[in-house]
Amino acid sequence: MNHVSAIFNDEQAIKLDCGSEIKYHLSYDTYGTLNADKSNAILICHALTGDQYAASTNPITGKAGWWSLMIGPGLAVDTDKYFVICANVLGGCIGSTGPTSTDPKTGKAYGLNFPIITIADMVRTQVRLVDHFKIDVLFSVIGGSMGGMLVLEWAANYKDRLLSAIPIATASKHSSQNIAFYEVGRQAVMADPNWHGGNYHANETAPKKGLAVARMIAHITYMSEESLQKKFGRKLQDRESITFGFDADFQIESYLRHQGMSFVDRFDANSYLYVSRAMDYFDLAEQFDGHLMNAFIDTNIRFCIISFTTDWAFPPAASKLITQALNRVAANVSYVEIDSPSGHDAFLMNEPELFDAVAGFLKSSDEKHEITPKGQK
Amino acid sequence: MNHVSAIFNDEQAIKLDCGSEIKYHLSYDTYGTLNADKSNAILICHALTGDQYAASTNPITGKAGWWSLMIGPGLAVDTDKYFVICANVLGGCIGSTGPTSTDPKTGKAYGLNFPIITIADMVRTQVRLVDHFKIDVLFSVIGGSMGGMLVLEWAANYKDRLLSAIPIATASKHSSQNIAFYEVGRQAVMADPNWHGGNYHANETAPKKGLAVARMIAHITYMSEESLQKKFGRKLQDRESITFGFDADFQIESYLRHQGMSFVDRFDANSYLYVSRAMDYFDLAEQFDGHLMNAFIDTNIRFCIISFTTDWAFPPAASKLITQALNRVAANVSYVEIDSPSGHDAFLMNEPELFDAVAGFLKSSDEKHEITPKGQK
Repeated sequence: MNHVSAIFNDEQAIKLDCGSEIKYHLSYDTYGTLNADKSNAILICHALTGDQYAASTNPITGKAGWWSLMIGPGLAVDTDKYFVICANVLGGCIGSTGPTSTDPKTGKAYGLNFPIITIADMVRTQVRLVDHFKIDVLFSVIGGSMGGMLVLEWAANYKDRLLSAIPIATASKHSSQNIAFYEVGRQAVMADPNWHGGNYHANETAPKKGLAVARMIAHITYMSEESLQKKFGRKLQDRESITFGFDADFQIESYLRHQGMSFVDRFDANSYLYVSRAMDYFDLAEQFDGHLMNAFIDTNIRFCIISFTTDWAFPPAASKLITQALNRVAANVSYVEIDSPSGHDAFLMNEPELFDAVAGFLKSSDEKHEITPKGQK
Repeated sequence: MNHVSAIFNDEQAIKLDCGSEIKYHLSYDTYGTLNADKSNAILICHALTGDQYAASTNPITGKAGWWSLMIGPGLAVDTDKYFVICANVLGGCIGSTGPTSTDPKTGKAYGLNFPIITIADMVRTQVRLVDHFKIDVLFSVIGGSMGGMLVLEWAANYKDRLLSAIPIATASKHSSQNIAFYEVGRQAVMADPNWHGGNYHANETAPKKGLAVARMIAHITYMSEESLQKKFGRKLQDRESITFGFDADFQIESYLRHQGMSFVDRFDANSYLYVSRAMDYFDLAEQFDGHLMNAFIDTNIRFCIISFTTDWAFPPAASKLITQALNRVAANVSYVEIDSPSGHDAFLMNEPELFDAVAGFLKSSDEKHEITPKGQK
C-alpha cells in the first residue's frame, strides 16, 4: 500500500466562524494512489481523539492505525482501488495547527489564545486540502462519531464536492447529555492547577491528572452497559478479595486508570478542550433555519447512515433523525443499524457487519461511477 | 409533627467488615411519636449524599428535607401514624462518625485513617440505634438508591427485625458501570492537590474543585437523557448565541457547575470517597454463596420493590433481579415499575405514583398488623 505522511501548508489564511482569521497547516496521511482523473479519492474524518494515522502505525503509540481493520488493501475501504486521505483536524494536536502551535503574535504556544473552532471550520480546512490535491469531487467522505459530524457538514455545505457520504455512530447535533459529559471533562482539566489557565506549556508542565479524569469520563460513555458487564462485571484485579481501600480492586477501575494515564501521553489538554467544544457547538439544523431537512435539499449525494444498537452516546435515534431528514427531501439514503454489544466504540472495533455495510455501499457507488485505477471509464 | 434531632452515642464499639473496631455515634432525626408497644417505627435510609433531614429543613442548606414530599402528616409515610427514624450513615459527614471525625489515636481528623466501611457496617450501626429505642420489630425499612441497598441488607440479615421493606431505585450490587462512574469521581477528588492525600483538614483546605467534578459526573447519571433533553436540550444560558469560548454557554453547563459548587458546601470529600466505596463493595448475593435468592430464604418480610422506567443508573432490570430472587423463595413481593421521565432522581421528586405505591403498600401492611397510635390491637 502506497503510504505518504505530509503536511499541507495553506498559503491562505482561513476565516473562522468565530470571526478570527488564522494561518494554519494540516498534517495528513494518504493511502493508495490517486487515479488519473482524480475520481477515486475518499476522505476519512477522525473522531475527537483520533488522528491522521487511520491505516498506518501511530508513531506516538506504536499501535496499528485506528481504522486499520477498515482501510487497506482488499479491505472495506480498499486502498488497491481508492486513494484515502486522512488529516488531523484543525485544533488537533497531532501535527495540525491547534492550541499547542506557536502563536505568531507572541512566539509562544497559543494556549487559550487559540480561536474557538467549529466543525464547519475543520471542514473548511479539509476543503482546502482537497483543493490542494486538485480533486473536484470526492468519491466518498466517511467518519465515525465527531468524524460523522464532519461528514454531515461536508454533505450539507459542499454538495458538489462528494458523491457519497457515510456518517457512522454520529448525530446532527450534540445532545444535552453529550454536552454535559464533555463539560465535566473540561472542568476536570481546568480544575487541575497544572493547567495554568491553558498556559501550561510556558510552565513546562501539563494538566495530566485532569485530562486523565476527562478521558475516563468520556471512555465510560463509549462502552455499553452490556459490554462493561460482560468484559468486567465485578471481577477483581489480580486479587482474591477486596482490599478495603481505594486501590483499583475492580478490573474496571484498573482499566479506566490505564485508559486515562495512557491517553495523556498522546493527547494535549487544550486540544481536548477545543475539539470537544467544537462538538458541543455542532447543530447542523441550526445552520438551516432549524430544519435539518433543509441541509439536504436538492442533494445528489448517496448516503449510508450507520448506527449501533447499544451506542448510548450517539444512539440509533440520532441516526434515524438524520435518515428521516434525508427521506423528507427524497435523498438517496440507506440506514443500517448494526446489532452490536460494544456501544459507541463499535465503530472502531472488529465489526464485520460494519465492514460489509461500508464495502457494499462503496461497491454499489463504484458500479455507478465505474472507478478504475486509471480513472472513470 | 413531633420532630427530634439527636445523637446516639453507642457505648459499645462496633466490629467492621474490614476487621477494624471503631467507637462511633450516629446523628439522627425522628418524626412523629413512637407508640406504646413500639410497633409503628419506620426506618428511612438515605442515599449517598443524603442525610438525616428527611422531613425537616436541612440546617446547612436551608432547604426542605429531601423526602419532605414523602414523609409528614397525612403523607405516604404518615407521621400522624408512624414514628420515623432517619440517621446519617456511618462514614457520613452530617454529624455521624466518619472520616472528618476526630481519630482518638491522634486527636486529629481521621482522613484516610478512617477504616473502610461497608453497607453491612452501616446497617450494623442502625440496628444498634433501633436497639437503643428498644424497638424489636420495625414496621418498615424504606430507602432509595444507596438507601435501597441498606434496606436489602436489613431484610437479608435481620429478618426478624422488620415487617416490610421498600427498596426503591436500587440494586443488589453496584454494576460495572456504577463502579466506573464513582471511580472516576474519586479520581477527580484525589487529583485535586487540595486533597493532600486525604489530610486536607490539617491543611485547612478542601479539594472543592475535584469534589465538584465528582458530583457533576454523578449528577449526569441521575438524570435521564429524556429529562435532560426536555429540561435543557441545547438551550443557551442568558445569551442569544454561543460566545465561542469556554463559558457556560449552554444551560446544562451552567446547571452542572451550580450543582457541583453548591454540593461542596454541604459535603465532605473524604466522606464521598468512603460512602461511594461502600456502594461499590455492595454485592448482596456474594454474602450468600453467590445466589441472591439465598439472601431471602424463609423470609416473612413483605417486600415492595420500586423502579423507574428511565433510571439508567439503577435500571428496572436491577429491581427485577431482586424481585425474581424473592419470587424464587416464594416471598411476599410486589414489584412496581413507575413510568417517569426523570431517571434515577425520580425517587426524590414529586412522583404521585411513587407516593401512592408506598402509601398503598404501608396501608395494606397496616391492615394486617392494625397499627394504632397506642400500639397493636
